[in-house]
Amino acid sequence: MQHNPELDQFRASIDNLDDAIMCMLAERFKITKKVGLLKKEYGLAPADPEREMQQIARLRASADKSGLDPEFAQKWLDFVFAEVVRHHEAVARGDNASPSE
Amino acid sequence: MQHNPELDQFRASIDNLDDAIMCMLAERFKITKKVGLLKKEYGLAPADPEREMQQIARLRASADKSGLDPEFAQKWLDFVFAEVVRHHEAVARGDNASPSE
Repeated sequence: MQHNPELDQFRASIDNLDDAIMCMLAERFKITKKVGLLKKEYGLAPADPEREMQQIARLRASADKSGLDPEFAQKWLDFVFAEVVRHHEAVARGDNASPSE
Repeated sequence: MQHNPELDQFRASIDNLDDAIMCMLAERFKITKKVGLLKKEYGLAPADPEREMQQIARLRASADKSGLDPEFAQKWLDFVFAEVVRHHEAVARGDNASPSE
């Protein structure tokens, strides 16, 4: 165990940020669940490649502005999309729905 | 392209959350860079397995409270740790430092 008051402060900030990000991801997944239901209700295709391309372009620019590597933003979206697909598969087991968003 | 006012609203919220998460990740990586420097300054080991285990346990509990799958929290931390290691490798090329946090 490493003890240093400055290190402890940094770690407390990391933990706070992680909690905040978890809360925002929980909200994000609530919305993607609603999007899945809405698409089903209106007979829209689960996946929307044009929207995905826009999301990737937007987030790459947003990452760049925040001082992050745009490649990281793309990896992050891929990671989140995979989880959204997993949620939709869990909800509609036996169904081919796999929207991203 | 799928157009529906309710869908557009959901998408605007997803985009806002993604921007907010990117900003918080940028702050998180600023702190992990400081942690890397601090560990170097004080001669602390780059990796701290006990801290990692605490982070995983904390975030699994935090995810569960937010209604997320604790397994997702663990996958998310693994994803972020990999990026932190990549940052440290980029900074200290030729050096074996690979702290997570």
